Amino acid sequence: MFYKNYSYEKVKRFCINVFAGYGFSGRECEIITDVLLCADLFGTESHGIQRLIRYHTEIGAGMVNVDAVPDVIHETPVSAVIDANKGMGQVVGVRSMELAIKKAQISGIGMISVRNSNHYGIAGYYTEMAAEADLMGICMTNTEAISVPTFGKKAMLGTNPIALSFPADPYNLLFDASTTVVTRGKVEVYNKNEKTLPDGWGINSDGQPCNDAGEVLKNIIEKLGGGISPLGGSTELQGGHKGYGLGLIVDLFTGILSSGSTSNHVNDLKDQTDIAQFYMAVDYGLFGEKKAVKKHLSEFLDELRTSPKAEGQTRIYTHGEKEAESKKQKLTEGIPINERTLDEMRMIAKHHGIDPDID
Amino acid sequence: MFYKNYSYEKVKRFCINVFAGYGFSGRECEIITDVLLCADLFGTESHGIQRLIRYHTEIGAGMVNVDAVPDVIHETPVSAVIDANKGMGQVVGVRSMELAIKKAQISGIGMISVRNSNHYGIAGYYTEMAAEADLMGICMTNTEAISVPTFGKKAMLGTNPIALSFPADPYNLLFDASTTVVTRGKVEVYNKNEKTLPDGWGINSDGQPCNDAGEVLKNIIEKLGGGISPLGGSTELQGGHKGYGLGLIVDLFTGILSSGSTSNHVNDLKDQTDIAQFYMAVDYGLFGEKKAVKKHLSEFLDELRTSPKAEGQTRIYTHGEKEAESKKQKLTEGIPINERTLDEMRMIAKHHGIDPDID
Repeated sequence: MFYKNYSYEKVKRFCINVFAGYGFSGRECEIITDVLLCADLFGTESHGIQRLIRYHTEIGAGMVNVDAVPDVIHETPVSAVIDANKGMGQVVGVRSMELAIKKAQISGIGMISVRNSNHYGIAGYYTEMAAEADLMGICMTNTEAISVPTFGKKAMLGTNPIALSFPADPYNLLFDASTTVVTRGKVEVYNKNEKTLPDGWGINSDGQPCNDAGEVLKNIIEKLGGGISPLGGSTELQGGHKGYGLGLIVDLFTGILSSGSTSNHVNDLKDQTDIAQFYMAVDYGLFGEKKAVKKHLSEFLDELRTSPKAEGQTRIYTHGEKEAESKKQKLTEGIPINERTLDEMRMIAKHHGIDPDID
Repeated sequence: MFYKNYSYEKVKRFCINVFAGYGFSGRECEIITDVLLCADLFGTESHGIQRLIRYHTEIGAGMVNVDAVPDVIHETPVSAVIDANKGMGQVVGVRSMELAIKKAQISGIGMISVRNSNHYGIAGYYTEMAAEADLMGICMTNTEAISVPTFGKKAMLGTNPIALSFPADPYNLLFDASTTVVTRGKVEVYNKNEKTLPDGWGINSDGQPCNDAGEVLKNIIEKLGGGISPLGGSTELQGGHKGYGLGLIVDLFTGILSSGSTSNHVNDLKDQTDIAQFYMAVDYGLFGEKKAVKKHLSEFLDELRTSPKAEGQTRIYTHGEKEAESKKQKLTEGIPINERTLDEMRMIAKHHGIDPDID
């Protein structure tokens, strides 16, 4: 597919104008754009500007309520439960992590579980907010069921990512990973390129291994059964029950603690996504002198990176390093956008009667 | 190998006598025995009575200080850092989770990071303590490095398990899993049976995939490089970087937050194991009416268990179910002990001048 690079500032202006077109406030437009483009900067194209069409559709279908005001249902000095009232995931996400950060700054720890929300972009955006405030951040979200439990044949859990940030030099530790072996986006890329799926990724409608990307995607879309394996694959041999359990834990922190919906009930209703999320911030000064703790982690990460490489390999990464390098590069060279996304952006701009300014 | 079953009460009496022989107090003998045999009851033979010989050796070598009194280094209403002072892992483990539980009961959350500790048996024992107190429990430990980071060839992380318990009916949710594809024990079983390792488990001293159980074990013992893959395997294709990251996160909560040693420095010194652990309890009443939250989780677990089965499968498990069933069975039928362990038990009994009473 054809890609063209656009400066971060240009894409940002485009997004802010588009979100203003839906009726979001100036501050909300800034938030949504910042989260969305953070994915592109980090090199996670699947969650960046190419997903604009999805938000466009969901706002149009009434699944996202542009005017939603979240309600705090329960609150203690260390916790809260928030009903997002169908608000935009990024808006309620940033406000929830801000609340978790405030609680951590006052009480040491803040844990916030949110129900009745929408897609919120990359989980790592929110954990980096905590790291920016010199705290540890944890974030999780459930998603529509796409992952099949060990020995099952029906998707019951989402890709259910877990993210964690912790301040470190020269890069923060930033772990952000789905609890499935891969995300749906990767299966779509294999399908587009007519490539056979690697063993261990896909499961067919009988619950058996399946290497046909098209079949797996068709089954997911038409809800015929099957889906993607948990991290560790579809059997216990490579630890698939562990990935299944980690996905289940994400649903515990999100759907269960918020008294919201678990993955298997996300999108049950036509006009409600009903995703649930979890935000946590911890002042790591609870555990020692912060400078020393951060230095200790930085040294450990350096030991990992500089440890002996496998034959044929030149580099061991620590989590967050690729994102930091990608961000630096894309702020200089621009954000690559594919032709299909460019068409969608033009269509959306036309819908709002604004100049896309992306030619 | 030959196995013989012994009643739980008989094995318990044996263990209490043996630990008293080392000089532990009555209460400490009860604690260590309870943790040790919990592994056998749960069906995790590797961490049960068969590991007695390891504790015997470590106490003999001065790595475990029988008379250790742990020091609380930092403490807040929601957190503590404890120096175990080389104490027995189970003793400091139970006391740490008791402290986490107390903090959760008063402040909603308790997070305790412990340094300078020893092996403590199964992580799930401690999380079940929290569940017994109607709380959520989380527990982690680092271990001697055995897992190779993605693109590396030197073991830098331990098996680094994560455990979580949450009250549910009819079984608690009890997740307890290493962040490696398998534990060392499983590789040892393949070696004993002269079986080829499944693809994705082992890595040789060049950092390449290795199916020879004997070679992998020899390399680990002689520290020649290589080891076991993280959950997800040795490459990024099946998500090995995710398992690597999860193992790293365990070292963050244990070795880093406690200002102790990370996996790659465990056993650096001859007379000190220097393992680090993490204990967390959360009053889930922070998030809603406890009965309703527990019911919601129980229903979700039931939905998973009753969801459609893969062709050829009859059952989908939720985490903690196998453990609950195994415990029930073993309390009735006895604990199976293999002949080699029986010999070791006789030797240890003789060392203490006590009657093993296991013929």
